[in-house]
Amino acid sequence: MRKGCPYGSHRVVEPKGLLPQPAWKIDNNMEIYDNEILIEVELLNIDSASFTQIEEEAGGEDNRIAEIVNGVVEERGKHHNPVTGSGGMLVGRVEKIGSELEGKIPLKVGQRLATLVSLSLTPLRIDKVKAIHKDTDQVEIEGKAILFESGIYAVLPEDMSQRLALAVLDVAGAPAQIAKLVKPGDRVLIIGAGGKSGLLCLHEARKRAGITGQVIGIAPREASRKRAESTGYCDAVLTADATDALEVMEKVKKATGGSMADLTINCVNINNTELSSILATRYGGVVYFFSMATNFTSAALGAEGVGKDVTMIIGNGYTRDHDAIALNIMRESPVLREIFEELYA
Amino acid sequence: MRKGCPYGSHRVVEPKGLLPQPAWKIDNNMEIYDNEILIEVELLNIDSASFTQIEEEAGGEDNRIAEIVNGVVEERGKHHNPVTGSGGMLVGRVEKIGSELEGKIPLKVGQRLATLVSLSLTPLRIDKVKAIHKDTDQVEIEGKAILFESGIYAVLPEDMSQRLALAVLDVAGAPAQIAKLVKPGDRVLIIGAGGKSGLLCLHEARKRAGITGQVIGIAPREASRKRAESTGYCDAVLTADATDALEVMEKVKKATGGSMADLTINCVNINNTELSSILATRYGGVVYFFSMATNFTSAALGAEGVGKDVTMIIGNGYTRDHDAIALNIMRESPVLREIFEELYA
Repeated sequence: MRKGCPYGSHRVVEPKGLLPQPAWKIDNNMEIYDNEILIEVELLNIDSASFTQIEEEAGGEDNRIAEIVNGVVEERGKHHNPVTGSGGMLVGRVEKIGSELEGKIPLKVGQRLATLVSLSLTPLRIDKVKAIHKDTDQVEIEGKAILFESGIYAVLPEDMSQRLALAVLDVAGAPAQIAKLVKPGDRVLIIGAGGKSGLLCLHEARKRAGITGQVIGIAPREASRKRAESTGYCDAVLTADATDALEVMEKVKKATGGSMADLTINCVNINNTELSSILATRYGGVVYFFSMATNFTSAALGAEGVGKDVTMIIGNGYTRDHDAIALNIMRESPVLREIFEELYA
Repeated sequence: MRKGCPYGSHRVVEPKGLLPQPAWKIDNNMEIYDNEILIEVELLNIDSASFTQIEEEAGGEDNRIAEIVNGVVEERGKHHNPVTGSGGMLVGRVEKIGSELEGKIPLKVGQRLATLVSLSLTPLRIDKVKAIHKDTDQVEIEGKAILFESGIYAVLPEDMSQRLALAVLDVAGAPAQIAKLVKPGDRVLIIGAGGKSGLLCLHEARKRAGITGQVIGIAPREASRKRAESTGYCDAVLTADATDALEVMEKVKKATGGSMADLTINCVNINNTELSSILATRYGGVVYFFSMATNFTSAALGAEGVGKDVTMIIGNGYTRDHDAIALNIMRESPVLREIFEELYA
């Protein structure tokens, strides 16, 4: 019996007492604990910021990129880029399931999965770098990795390409959270409606708000406005600069007949959009921030500064069954599948 | 007739088009618009995270603290700490009410009030720093400030001292939000239970969770642990380092018989406590971040990294009637009033 911490702290080498993500080095010995899962890795999907940094450091040469990736993993026991602090995700096959987990989780040996926890906390060993795909930030390898008991993953579906599935899984949290929040008749505003997570949110918002609800998108440019509009999910798509709180407020006021949004979903990865989201939302409404560019104090003090009693939620990339909910949108919505196939797959 | 924007956008100097809070610099000319209120300032109650940062930068020296506070206000037209992004509040007397507002709001010239909007968006001019109170994060000044039409404030009550009222109003949002969130029978965890907002939250948590609920405090040191315990509101007060996620998780696990908290309230103004808050909360529970030291991405990626489906809320300093709810705690709870009189008044 060798049972590890569900969060993987038993594998932290340095500094002791931390969790695997903040730790400098973790143990990548591939003999698994009874509550771990061993994965035969096929592909590393490197975080875009990390891949760009490595590519620059390597002067764009494939063998140098391979050396750097190998070096990081040898030194830290995980692909945790020391410059950017970020990781990525991986795709592989289940090789072994620890005795504590076997039969208790739906996973089976041989299944292909994508890990949905960051590579920056995943024990990894690279035996061979097979190919480097600079256009997609991906590295094909032979190697092994370990998933902790708390580690989240998605079994890859048979009815879509791996690239399409990965693009959807990358933002799976957003539509799944929205699915749980939106009630029939709600007025829903989606800022960044033409982007990857915004488009998926439009679908869930329309589905849950229903015929009595109102779904409004905001897009910065004509191309993204048209893309959001082409889904057929919106009652209106407004062109507005999401950083201009007063412009957004006025346009949403007009589109809602003065009622403002019951729920505002911020999916736009740029700075200074907190106040737009707050001012566009009705007194007592909810603002859901999915944008990683959200600044905590700007939101907290912004709402106080304008005396607005709204509930502001930090986007959690994980919610139960988010992978299934998000992937299923590709089956439910031919129009979104077409857009996603064209843009991301 | 000079009517400004209700949110104060007419005073933004740089960058144009923003609202006063996110703006770098605002106009602190003290000639008021017709929908503004001029205040003769007596006291700045600096946000705790901000004061701590300034005190550290100043090496604890009073004259250096004064220099830094003056410098920020000269540069930005407001006391908006560029490092922490936070502000504080102020106390003063109404000196002049713009013609558009006079007679339409309950305020009269000469009344003493505390502004409940952040100093990070309030036009301020400091003529003289008179005294610095490091024990209470307060700075006595001579100066002027402006309240916009949307700005919220509280007229200071007659039955308690100004310093006491101010200490309570500074964190009024926290207990008022908690009052609305906690349901009978809830297990409530308060991180930073011995601090100002933590103590007020303890009272509301006990009152709302009731006899079937469980109220647990976490304090970093023996003194704050004893203070939280002395309120009589806690079922348990644990001593733990709030930045040590595993220690906090284990102790809360033990104290809740393995159930973990339904609601965790983070009131501790230090960095790297997001993961502790997340791990201490049950699957499906709520984490309420009142700490201005909260980092948005640490919370968002932290929850995803450990696969924890919790709702994370950005503390909104304003909710309807928060001043009345918070001030009334001083009337309802003799034990808290005694502690507050001793520590902050």
